[in-house]
Amino acid sequence: QARDHRMRCFCADDGLKTIRLNRVEKLEMIPPSPSCGKQEIVATLKDGAGKKCLNPESIFVQELIKRVMQKRTQQ
Amino acid sequence: QARDHRMRCFCADDGLKTIRLNRVEKLEMIPPSPSCGKQEIVATLKDGAGKKCLNPESIFVQELIKRVMQKRTQQ
Repeated sequence: QARDHRMRCFCADDGLKTIRLNRVEKLEMIPPSPSCGKQEIVATLKDGAGKKCLNPESIFVQELIKRVMQKRTQQ
Repeated sequence: QARDHRMRCFCADDGLKTIRLNRVEKLEMIPPSPSCGKQEIVATLKDGAGKKCLNPESIFVQELIKRVMQKRTQQ
């Protein structure tokens, strides 16, 4: 039953466990919903390099989000 | 000089200091970049209710992001 949800999820797999912050143009966080029962985190890469799903369970991904939150202005 | 950056930012103002999590379909976090020198947080609302900028300085918004990160599966 739970697997049915995946059909309308954006991410087909568990996603990357690590990514370099300087490659990231935008991070999208999508809470679980009726159309996808799992949280999804999608990174849009710079230079039109597409989108990558990130693994919300990954400690590195969680740290990345904290670092993005802390980086409020350009140094 | 810093103000010039705003011209290509998505958010025209400082953004909302609070929003209800159950109204949020998606959260976008955009780190500072050459085209916009400030961090931007954009919430896409459910039911096609559009997008709202959130204030990254707001403690409530920061807590919201933590709560979204913690909510990995639907209860």
